[in-house]
Amino acid sequence: MTDVLALIPAGIDTYRQPVVYMTEDCHICRAEGFVAQTRVRIDLRGRSIIAELNVVTKGAWLPSDHAALSMSAWTALAAREGDRGRFSHPEPAPSASQIRAKAYGARLTAADFTAIVQDTLAHRLSDLELAAFLTACTGDRLDEAETVALTRAMLEAGDRLDWGRARVLDKHCVGGLPGNRTSPIVVAIVAAAGEIIPKTSSRAITSPAGTADTMEVMTPVDLDEMAIRKVVEAEGGCVVWGGALNLSPADDHFIRIERPLDLDSTGQLVASILSKKAAVGSNHVLIDMPVGPTAKVRSHVAAAALGDRLVAVGHHFDLNVVLHVSDGSGPVGYGIGPALEAADVLSVLRREARAPQDLRARALDLAGGLLDIAAGTTGAGRGIAEAILDSGAAEAKFMAICDRQGGFHEPKEAPERAEVLAPHGGTLRAIDNRLIARIAKLAGAPRQKCAGVRLHARPGETLAPGQPMFTIHASTKGELAYSRAYAELHREVMTIAEGPP
Amino acid sequence: MTDVLALIPAGIDTYRQPVVYMTEDCHICRAEGFVAQTRVRIDLRGRSIIAELNVVTKGAWLPSDHAALSMSAWTALAAREGDRGRFSHPEPAPSASQIRAKAYGARLTAADFTAIVQDTLAHRLSDLELAAFLTACTGDRLDEAETVALTRAMLEAGDRLDWGRARVLDKHCVGGLPGNRTSPIVVAIVAAAGEIIPKTSSRAITSPAGTADTMEVMTPVDLDEMAIRKVVEAEGGCVVWGGALNLSPADDHFIRIERPLDLDSTGQLVASILSKKAAVGSNHVLIDMPVGPTAKVRSHVAAAALGDRLVAVGHHFDLNVVLHVSDGSGPVGYGIGPALEAADVLSVLRREARAPQDLRARALDLAGGLLDIAAGTTGAGRGIAEAILDSGAAEAKFMAICDRQGGFHEPKEAPERAEVLAPHGGTLRAIDNRLIARIAKLAGAPRQKCAGVRLHARPGETLAPGQPMFTIHASTKGELAYSRAYAELHREVMTIAEGPP
Repeated sequence: MTDVLALIPAGIDTYRQPVVYMTEDCHICRAEGFVAQTRVRIDLRGRSIIAELNVVTKGAWLPSDHAALSMSAWTALAAREGDRGRFSHPEPAPSASQIRAKAYGARLTAADFTAIVQDTLAHRLSDLELAAFLTACTGDRLDEAETVALTRAMLEAGDRLDWGRARVLDKHCVGGLPGNRTSPIVVAIVAAAGEIIPKTSSRAITSPAGTADTMEVMTPVDLDEMAIRKVVEAEGGCVVWGGALNLSPADDHFIRIERPLDLDSTGQLVASILSKKAAVGSNHVLIDMPVGPTAKVRSHVAAAALGDRLVAVGHHFDLNVVLHVSDGSGPVGYGIGPALEAADVLSVLRREARAPQDLRARALDLAGGLLDIAAGTTGAGRGIAEAILDSGAAEAKFMAICDRQGGFHEPKEAPERAEVLAPHGGTLRAIDNRLIARIAKLAGAPRQKCAGVRLHARPGETLAPGQPMFTIHASTKGELAYSRAYAELHREVMTIAEGPP
Repeated sequence: MTDVLALIPAGIDTYRQPVVYMTEDCHICRAEGFVAQTRVRIDLRGRSIIAELNVVTKGAWLPSDHAALSMSAWTALAAREGDRGRFSHPEPAPSASQIRAKAYGARLTAADFTAIVQDTLAHRLSDLELAAFLTACTGDRLDEAETVALTRAMLEAGDRLDWGRARVLDKHCVGGLPGNRTSPIVVAIVAAAGEIIPKTSSRAITSPAGTADTMEVMTPVDLDEMAIRKVVEAEGGCVVWGGALNLSPADDHFIRIERPLDLDSTGQLVASILSKKAAVGSNHVLIDMPVGPTAKVRSHVAAAALGDRLVAVGHHFDLNVVLHVSDGSGPVGYGIGPALEAADVLSVLRREARAPQDLRARALDLAGGLLDIAAGTTGAGRGIAEAILDSGAAEAKFMAICDRQGGFHEPKEAPERAEVLAPHGGTLRAIDNRLIARIAKLAGAPRQKCAGVRLHARPGETLAPGQPMFTIHASTKGELAYSRAYAELHREVMTIAEGPP
């Protein structure tokens, strides 16, 4: 039924998709009837993976009695040089038929979602099957009961932190606004007020920076549970990368497929947010929903529907969800990209005159909202938050958190820069979130920490003809040239209306 | 904006997905910010492809100043040793937003479908995007106007044959019944009656044999348009593989993604069938729809809905579609697998006493239906078809067609065989189409022409305890053992009821 081959690393990075390379004349390929793109099961010391087969021409680079594994396959199997893996045909994933049922419009049960989550984590579902599942959930195709079931399945598949406190605060932003890096400021203010706020953040997947990428410019974020506990016990808050913890681990798999497809599902989004929040052990969550034509939430109707679902599903997990709808018409602050956003964050915490006032105001709104939740007040929190920020207590708390996470570093400036000039004069009416994000990504963000875009004007301000609209920052001349060429081709990134503002 | 690297073949078969291998320290990876699983555009002499990037460890097997291409990428670019390709970031596929709209439930226009088909053929859509498109069309999510538009977009993207005749007949089976190999018999009878029937067939994708695989056991099927014209002009009919022609070429891409997902979309299925029939130049098409719990069409309600759509859409392309609903409760004939099915076909054509009577009856029904369409009669065709078969004229016509296609060969028997015995006595009530197909595939079908399953009993017949239910045929001992082990684990493939029939 199974057969054995020596395993070697292929030295090929296929990202998260496990791939196995076997030669066309290998005895297992011949006996088992494996052909290219077959899914193959490999067992080694109690672990097993399902990998996609790529067939290597005889004599190319792989001996016939060896199978080479992509980096992700090698890591998932915990293989070592000299290991011999057992090869077999995988059974179809048990949940494939549930995914099919969902594509036809069926309602799924709690057991169905558990099966899908388990098969996802065990790599038993192909990327195509995951794409079908996520497409079948698009829009409002998961109802409330299904959303609760999916959230629970995702939560129960991972670890849960417990802080032993009646009140653990948290915040989340539904995303889509470049530069909207309020978390480090909010955590600093709320922790300075004496509350507990263990914030885990994600790295960028399709955006120019995630909070974890921005924070990493200033301090280590890749902490394990023990290290996080030490930071939070000492300082009340942290801003760390959630990926080193096993919190709602299926979410990363879903996001990996969902983001390139740019599909949103209300149910998926709610399950993604709330399973992570419940897993991290928070019980009061303020959710920021920027609404705007190029933001993730595009209308107030959509925001209301998403908000209702978040609150309703939160009840099932003892999560008190409070909503904050904000303006999502354009980027926040001046910087887009990890180091440029970190500079904005520091500028606000340091109360500099040049600090972006919109970022400051948003952070105060959110910190105030959390302090209201904590004190049971309505509106009093914002003044307290402002006092904490203006007193320097938030800056001191932020530096203390960074010290506990492993030390603070000042963000560095990019070596390569180019200005993009206004084609004509007038009032800046709007900035396209998606285009400006793409320009920052082409410049190298978030892979190159210093790369991105610094805006010189904000909506409502006037621009003279030939005045710089923004500066592109990059770490290499190639990336700078590429991003700049794209920006020149897409001047509609900024809408400049002629005449008075 | 773009950069250049020397191209070499990687000697890796990734099936149809184009993959490019570049080293981690390659200057383009660094300058352009390419990381694993990025989609990369490669231009060479006016051709361009979008390939997925896999990053190779420095010093592994690829020089830093070279990019290696998977076989499909090498072929698609028509690359030659010494070529230098230009590398750049691809723009998102123009139709990606239409696919997203469909996932949210929007109706698509004719222009939208044309864009999706064009982007599919140009490899501008990723496999995930194609999976999202097909999932979004599942069930009845394409209406009639959308189905017409998709059919037209698929038809117009390829070539069209023109036979210069008012009446060109064709048949199609909606599939799902192992062993249901009527086409060679139907073509022989109808061509012997003096009609024109240029039949193109597909190879198996997820089934143990396609008509092209079965026919290939007996005669070459990989003919170009000129060769097909010669066969049809001389003999009135042919049974060839459609893949060498450029008829509705997007269909193959859709099927490649759709089949492993096992999703059916009425609109997709209708567009797939009718775009191919219109492209091949036929104008009267008899469509066989076997209905059964494990067939592709599972109920008469589903058959009626599919049939109505086929007839309605056919009108838009001057196709007279006639439906034939048949019993789809189990496999047809004794053999499942290319050579075993070919043996059944020959046995019917040769009027052998042991010939499978169900295959004979089905072929006569369909040939009779086509002769009725041709003559404008109702029911008279079957007697004529039977007379042609019984006279030996169909056998003679079949041998003449094979001679014209390149010569006839007798099917060969498999070297390895094993019987699977009835666990208890009783009446055989049902055979599970999907399980018996899987057993045949695990034995090596269709890759190994001689592999598959030969049934020893048909529903309604009685089996004694320990009597053989079927024999597995394989070309290697490994495949035989694997298929046999699966069959022993899945005795429910045959439902045997104790007591009288």
